[in-house]
Amino acid sequence: MTVPKLSPQLLPDIAPRDVPAALMAALQARFGARCATGLAVREQHGRDESSFDVPPPAAVVFVESTDDVAEVVRLAAMYAVPIIPFGVGSSLEGHVLAVQGGISIDMNGMNRVLAVNAEDLTVTVQPGVTRKQVNEELRSHGLFFPIDPGAVASIGGMTATRASGTNAVRYGTMRENVLALEVVTASAEVIRTGSRARKSSAGYDLTRLFVGSEGTLGVITEITLRVYPLPEAISAAICSFPTLEAAVRSTIQTIQLGVPIARVELIDRHAVRAVNRHSGLSLREEPLLLMEFHGSPAGVEEQAKTVQQIAHEMGGQDFEWASTPEERTRLWTARHNAYFAGVQSRPGCRAITTDVCVPISRLADCLLESVDEAEASGIPYFLVGHVGDGNFHFGYLIDPTDAAEREAAEALNHALVERALRLDGTCTGEHGVGLHKMDFLVAEAGEGAMAVMRALKHALDPQDIMNPGKILRPA
Amino acid sequence: MTVPKLSPQLLPDIAPRDVPAALMAALQARFGARCATGLAVREQHGRDESSFDVPPPAAVVFVESTDDVAEVVRLAAMYAVPIIPFGVGSSLEGHVLAVQGGISIDMNGMNRVLAVNAEDLTVTVQPGVTRKQVNEELRSHGLFFPIDPGAVASIGGMTATRASGTNAVRYGTMRENVLALEVVTASAEVIRTGSRARKSSAGYDLTRLFVGSEGTLGVITEITLRVYPLPEAISAAICSFPTLEAAVRSTIQTIQLGVPIARVELIDRHAVRAVNRHSGLSLREEPLLLMEFHGSPAGVEEQAKTVQQIAHEMGGQDFEWASTPEERTRLWTARHNAYFAGVQSRPGCRAITTDVCVPISRLADCLLESVDEAEASGIPYFLVGHVGDGNFHFGYLIDPTDAAEREAAEALNHALVERALRLDGTCTGEHGVGLHKMDFLVAEAGEGAMAVMRALKHALDPQDIMNPGKILRPA
Repeated sequence: MTVPKLSPQLLPDIAPRDVPAALMAALQARFGARCATGLAVREQHGRDESSFDVPPPAAVVFVESTDDVAEVVRLAAMYAVPIIPFGVGSSLEGHVLAVQGGISIDMNGMNRVLAVNAEDLTVTVQPGVTRKQVNEELRSHGLFFPIDPGAVASIGGMTATRASGTNAVRYGTMRENVLALEVVTASAEVIRTGSRARKSSAGYDLTRLFVGSEGTLGVITEITLRVYPLPEAISAAICSFPTLEAAVRSTIQTIQLGVPIARVELIDRHAVRAVNRHSGLSLREEPLLLMEFHGSPAGVEEQAKTVQQIAHEMGGQDFEWASTPEERTRLWTARHNAYFAGVQSRPGCRAITTDVCVPISRLADCLLESVDEAEASGIPYFLVGHVGDGNFHFGYLIDPTDAAEREAAEALNHALVERALRLDGTCTGEHGVGLHKMDFLVAEAGEGAMAVMRALKHALDPQDIMNPGKILRPA
Repeated sequence: MTVPKLSPQLLPDIAPRDVPAALMAALQARFGARCATGLAVREQHGRDESSFDVPPPAAVVFVESTDDVAEVVRLAAMYAVPIIPFGVGSSLEGHVLAVQGGISIDMNGMNRVLAVNAEDLTVTVQPGVTRKQVNEELRSHGLFFPIDPGAVASIGGMTATRASGTNAVRYGTMRENVLALEVVTASAEVIRTGSRARKSSAGYDLTRLFVGSEGTLGVITEITLRVYPLPEAISAAICSFPTLEAAVRSTIQTIQLGVPIARVELIDRHAVRAVNRHSGLSLREEPLLLMEFHGSPAGVEEQAKTVQQIAHEMGGQDFEWASTPEERTRLWTARHNAYFAGVQSRPGCRAITTDVCVPISRLADCLLESVDEAEASGIPYFLVGHVGDGNFHFGYLIDPTDAAEREAAEALNHALVERALRLDGTCTGEHGVGLHKMDFLVAEAGEGAMAVMRALKHALDPQDIMNPGKILRPA
């Protein structure tokens, strides 16, 4: 498997499509002030957490209902103009950027929790609802939604990118936890996929087709999620390790023994240092595992004992418990802030992030070789990982005005992806393809599978108006 | 939601397509004796466990490799002749029937376990491997593959129908447990989907698109599965209940409390009686729950204690434990034989089976009303259910020579599906659509989603040669 050298120009050289005055007039007639064209609003919807700069969309429509979405799509389809759904803009891969111009659809007005079916362990929400909001709503029912990518992301965005995060090692990803969808297709039809039944063999799995499709096949307007009873007992712990290798091997052994650990996060010494500064903590500046256990009080104790023993054998030190909700929140807030803390550790920098995921038997090899390369490059970086899944992220902190630094960071990323694919892994565990990984996807999937993906895209969006220029590199 | 009255003719009135002599000659030149045209072989490949009678395929090719499959597809595509993958023929829905004629591809020669990656908890197999064979191979590694539909099905067939069965309540279905596939497409390309990484956001989820596609989008030639460490402790129990309602409510409460029960199966008094006769048991002829618990010894004990208490409160009696492997095997063998025992309880009959799945809060309503209807009809029946998932099966035992009985049984099935859809459920939890549920699928998915499914099918199989006439009713 060879990963083609990334073209020096990451962004495809395609001019924005025209947005005819007639379309703008129709949108303004229908949506009034909810169709915004001011530069500030457009610029805010023309960027995310990626490091790309492209011109903003021609307009932003603030939708409040499925009918609104269908109407924007219907009008855009008439003129073959791109539309781009926008949640909170926390994508790291340029998903919401208007690379071919067009209309941004701001989904934040669709932010209602539509139904909590506590007995069935399901909740139905609009796409603009954030994961935080879902969990606030669920708490009084004794339930929670575990998928937690760190950012206060919208459920629509998390669905569209097949997100996961810290709890996936036990509860799976959006792939496993989305039961049903409502979607506006490229022909402005409103369809439903799936049902609230826990399982089904009824035809093609359209739900899973739209999960992870990054807005390129349709606009998701309603999502039914699996939720879980709040665990009777929760316990969190941190443990420092003398080396990254010891921390990783500890994790691997935990997974292979089948311990149902709920979270197991790796933070390298650079990230620990950044977190200490950012959150006023005084964690030992060594590789750290941050863990959480869910279950009955006896079950949690049993899991914790097993993991503590494994960590001890690997040279883990300062095994420290956080059993009160306050202590746990303090630790997890620090973990969630690791990305921003990392970025702030080099003032003025931008982060180029990586997202490979490999089978756990290959994790130590993949991660340690890549750390050696990063150290040798001299580029400042930090490393965090959902290591129980074999997924980890480098943040290479580059000076955006220094082309050589960007090139060096991209070379590191390239070598990392090549290594992950060689080790039976994937170029993206949870961030999605977006703009940044279109060539990596070809290397990973192969030409045959890419032809199938292109055929699906063409069948469902023949005019290429649904978030064009993402996932599949334009011909 | 209204379910259209099933057309009196369940099978579409489409004549078998011609199989040109040139294709037969090419197949015989390539495969020699592995291309069989004798009537007995063709008839064996022209039926399954469904109650339909259709003419057999024109030939059966016994493939031994992915190249063989690609060659059959390439030749069939040249002449636009249907191909139909065949595993062990345990489908209940007519999946392997040659309703439009064509070539059956017998996959049983592709029966190798290709790789056990014990550290990663994955196994890669050819499609003709049975679930029994996988588990024999895994046992020495301390692992098991939990998906258990009862029949000694092939992994290829289980993948193609998105099968599940008794362990799905804890471990999920084929949807959750297939990581990657190799597939021969309708243009005879060999593609790979997914990787051995536990999660990925790399493009469209082709793996999940082929899982459950019933051979209509491509032929699956290799499957990578998630497997699990053998539980440290396993314990099984049976409990009789005074009423079906008490058994169902016991199950619902168990699930809602989040008890990680591994199996919870309902067997009604008719099925218990049939099982007693078939397997020489003397189970109390009342509604029965058959349960299994997996975990650490302490964890299993804790789960069992909780469930025992719930059952007791619901009037459950004769809670009986089976802790030795022999006792457990005896009980689960009885459960696995329930279908055949049921069918044998009316000599000469054929079974029309149902497969609805509803959210668990609706399970009692759906199941009890349907039992009342079945009792009122006078048609002999039995009922078994994976009730932890909200999924249950009636077997209506009809005299195949009596058109009125068939019609009455189909009317019961129809009323049941209508009820399940009204209750937010699905017409098929695990058996698939096949021939029998094409009209139910339209009622469930709606015209918009059906148009998407048809567009996908047409994009990937423009000549309609991949198991045509299944899932999507021919126009």
